[in-house]
Amino acid sequence: MSGARNLSAALRRARLPRPRILARPILSTSSPATATATALRSFSASSLRADTKQIKYTSDAYPNIKRDPKFAEISADDVKFFKELLGSESAVIDGVTTDATDDLEPFNSDWMRKYRGHTRLVLKPGSTEEVSKVLKYCNDRKLAVVPQGGNTGLVGGSVPVFDEIVVNTSRMNKIRSFDAASGVLVADAGVILETADSYLAEREHLFPLDLGAKGSCHIGGNVSTNAGGLRLLRYGSLHGTVLGLEAVLPDGTIVESLSTLRKNNTGYDLKQLFIGSEGTIGLVTAVSIICPPRPKAVNVAYFGLESFEQVQQAYLAAKGQLSEILSAFELMDGRSQGLVIESTGNKHPLEGEYPFYCLIETSGSNSEHDMAKLETFLENVMGEGIVADGVLAQDETQFQALWRWREGITEALSHLGGTYKYDVSIPLSELYQLVEDCKARLTEKGFVGDDDSFPVRAVVGYGHMGDSNLHLNVAVRQYNKEVEKAIEPWVYEWIQKRNGSISAEHGMGVAKKEYIGYSQNETMVKLMKQLKALYDPVSIFLSLNSSRCDHHTNVIFWQNGIMNPYKYI
Amino acid sequence: MSGARNLSAALRRARLPRPRILARPILSTSSPATATATALRSFSASSLRADTKQIKYTSDAYPNIKRDPKFAEISADDVKFFKELLGSESAVIDGVTTDATDDLEPFNSDWMRKYRGHTRLVLKPGSTEEVSKVLKYCNDRKLAVVPQGGNTGLVGGSVPVFDEIVVNTSRMNKIRSFDAASGVLVADAGVILETADSYLAEREHLFPLDLGAKGSCHIGGNVSTNAGGLRLLRYGSLHGTVLGLEAVLPDGTIVESLSTLRKNNTGYDLKQLFIGSEGTIGLVTAVSIICPPRPKAVNVAYFGLESFEQVQQAYLAAKGQLSEILSAFELMDGRSQGLVIESTGNKHPLEGEYPFYCLIETSGSNSEHDMAKLETFLENVMGEGIVADGVLAQDETQFQALWRWREGITEALSHLGGTYKYDVSIPLSELYQLVEDCKARLTEKGFVGDDDSFPVRAVVGYGHMGDSNLHLNVAVRQYNKEVEKAIEPWVYEWIQKRNGSISAEHGMGVAKKEYIGYSQNETMVKLMKQLKALYDPVSIFLSLNSSRCDHHTNVIFWQNGIMNPYKYI
Repeated sequence: MSGARNLSAALRRARLPRPRILARPILSTSSPATATATALRSFSASSLRADTKQIKYTSDAYPNIKRDPKFAEISADDVKFFKELLGSESAVIDGVTTDATDDLEPFNSDWMRKYRGHTRLVLKPGSTEEVSKVLKYCNDRKLAVVPQGGNTGLVGGSVPVFDEIVVNTSRMNKIRSFDAASGVLVADAGVILETADSYLAEREHLFPLDLGAKGSCHIGGNVSTNAGGLRLLRYGSLHGTVLGLEAVLPDGTIVESLSTLRKNNTGYDLKQLFIGSEGTIGLVTAVSIICPPRPKAVNVAYFGLESFEQVQQAYLAAKGQLSEILSAFELMDGRSQGLVIESTGNKHPLEGEYPFYCLIETSGSNSEHDMAKLETFLENVMGEGIVADGVLAQDETQFQALWRWREGITEALSHLGGTYKYDVSIPLSELYQLVEDCKARLTEKGFVGDDDSFPVRAVVGYGHMGDSNLHLNVAVRQYNKEVEKAIEPWVYEWIQKRNGSISAEHGMGVAKKEYIGYSQNETMVKLMKQLKALYDPVSIFLSLNSSRCDHHTNVIFWQNGIMNPYKYI
Repeated sequence: MSGARNLSAALRRARLPRPRILARPILSTSSPATATATALRSFSASSLRADTKQIKYTSDAYPNIKRDPKFAEISADDVKFFKELLGSESAVIDGVTTDATDDLEPFNSDWMRKYRGHTRLVLKPGSTEEVSKVLKYCNDRKLAVVPQGGNTGLVGGSVPVFDEIVVNTSRMNKIRSFDAASGVLVADAGVILETADSYLAEREHLFPLDLGAKGSCHIGGNVSTNAGGLRLLRYGSLHGTVLGLEAVLPDGTIVESLSTLRKNNTGYDLKQLFIGSEGTIGLVTAVSIICPPRPKAVNVAYFGLESFEQVQQAYLAAKGQLSEILSAFELMDGRSQGLVIESTGNKHPLEGEYPFYCLIETSGSNSEHDMAKLETFLENVMGEGIVADGVLAQDETQFQALWRWREGITEALSHLGGTYKYDVSIPLSELYQLVEDCKARLTEKGFVGDDDSFPVRAVVGYGHMGDSNLHLNVAVRQYNKEVEKAIEPWVYEWIQKRNGSISAEHGMGVAKKEYIGYSQNETMVKLMKQLKALYDPVSIFLSLNSSRCDHHTNVIFWQNGIMNPYKYI
């Protein structure tokens, strides 16, 4: 990366020169995150078209999951009802009365090419009222439903397993209001994250969530999966920033809780239940969220470090010294960066090779102050030998290029075949040990190697250091049950021993449904099932058998459970 | 406040001199907030002793609330059971088999002298297991329970109405763990907020919540009431900062959800339900919370302004220019400051009188940078005539003295007799209009005046401008039903018209139970009642009447509802 300032050299000077900082480098609509997301999507879309046959059906990959016979099958009458209800031709993709296999496919499969369902009907309601009528009808008819946003999830949560109806939010895509004084945005669930952020950028505000798939994902999906991403370190989780929600329960009840107030203690905070419940108790149709002022100055630095011990030291120094302006502290191991080099052919920003790399971003309101803080921090960590080498972005192009080394990992991995992705929380001191242990385990079993006779091509680790959130990725030449069995449930047991979480930010979906016991005890799971039963309505039947006063009464609870079945818990 | 820098004068100089900033002015254990809290508590304690007879029973003040006959009365056997269970003499205050009226009184009444119950039994379990056994016993016996922390609430939520057993958390007061790398504190519910903050101060961290009653309130109570307070503007709500909870359900089930992970997407986030549910679905026994690094530099400025329009302009300027270091923006009207002068006899920090005053606090990691930002802001708002006059604290004493003008309002009001307190959220542009309208209404009705023939002494407004959170206070010479009727439900209708919240941060308690419909629609209230029914266990009875095959079967749902009855929703 010619032109990027090398910090080792700079340290030799008495005073670091101040690189040019653009007024608002992150306002660009072609941010590195977006570029990645777009690349991911186009990769996904083209793969799906070309290699549809290669994506295994989830029902085949998970033969223990059986279609629940309580659900009705979609009839031509059902399709007729939906077409009349939704009106517009484009609102219904009908594979029941017509052949629409190709049109249905993008809604049946995920971009990782790991999950594939059998839906024959996709509905795109245009309003909350339409969602309400769709769900009520499905509930009455016992038709199972999968709520779907941008379908960028990583755990198979947003695609059907069998013939569930996909209810997609893409036609509900209006920004309803924004108030600059309070910073509160109210928007439909189907607004794309990047669209929301660009809208806010024009009004000098920022969406308090950012992630690689921002160019495709919907904010309703972000909320339904409690997405974490790149800005959580600074702006906190959606449980804190989401002020209100509108959602539809399976029986058609519209939950109107779109408060725009920062403080509102009037009863149970029910909206919290929809945040992270992956569409299992209702479908989120709109979001009210508090958005911070857009930072006027953003700086990015990229380092090489010799050990994970030093990564931890660098993180603690950044937390203490950069404090209120620290907006990201990302970790990438050497192998992950090697893959990005192989995949992109780009020249690495640092001369030497290091086992660990970190990316630090600061966001603040005064570029001089921020640069002064960053320089003091850099002098400190380099002076003490914590950081071996580093560069500091001098303009927006370099800013984007540095982020690309973090954001490009997912794409680089996707070129290798399949990827077993584990998104976990682990106490900081042991965060990277999981990668080492997993690699050792798979190597010992003879799975890892450079030629095509080995199923595993690479075991890499990266993630959000500031959130104790590791992404362990095992890149395979193709999905392989033997490798999967060597990793699972071993990886979950490893995490359980350290009181970690088996799903930090990606959610449960199909992928982790069976493993919740590694992160939640029996009581918690029981309480969660109770809650699911509360919202996916329960009916009570009394069956009376009478034979001349010798009668029996049986009470039968019948749970519809139409919302996103076979997943979550 | 001699020595505090007058900003009008300072503006005449080319460059503002930098006042001395202490390294950590907010580490002091005798912060202004504490001083207020202590004063409030001692006022309360002494009043209770002297004037117990003057506190009306809630059951008399609210004659429409009837004791629910489904609840059992406490027997000598119950007391025996609890004494054996809890062991320690100090763990049980027994007014059933002994005369303990005086000892019970502080647990029966609130410090505002507005609510008073009839409990004859106070239990102070020493562990989560003891809480579990207590609640299970109470649930089996249908004995009603009031969870109680520091009993500093403002809506009567933490004192009994009738003979509910008080389960007080004061003996559960240990800090369980703190991890400096992640900033995560795990502590028992009965730890006093100030104790937790002092513990964190020694470890260079900060509790992300601060409020006037910090010297008495328990963190379990803070979480159970979703307390907002002074730092919400900067650190967000407890829904975002609380990472885990331990709680006991009415049937004795221990909800172990004490995660210390910043990201954990494994199932429904049930802990959220306990945040702000005022002890109606369970009793919080421990809290895990993420705490930020303690700011190294804190500055406080205090202004006079000529109009509410200018207050809004000053707030928007502070939000934009102080951005990441702004930690408080408090509003006080002229009348509220006059009351503090009358009550304390202190000299006001500004020469002239203004209809509005604001207090701004910044917290950051670099005192020079923060002061530079603050000076630029001050030059801006004073140069543009937004702020008429102001002072900037030059040392810790002044820092505390300035906060006292905000924090001292509650105490000043309490010297006047009683106070009708309304804690509401209103869109910013109309925030203060409520005070004007309320004053006009009460004046028109002839209630407001300076001599003892008028029931109302003052209508004042103050609050957390940065959170759109107003405290409307009507100071009365004594509580007066006529005045109350003139305010309620008028005040709630006023707020409903503006889509505000009738309870921003104080909660519902007894005070607002009847008024939830002004901030939540019928569907939401129904869903909330459903949730309450889920956790306060429901039993189903089948009653069979058989008369020679002509049998009837009745299904009866029986809800225990032992947790904090007569309150909330």
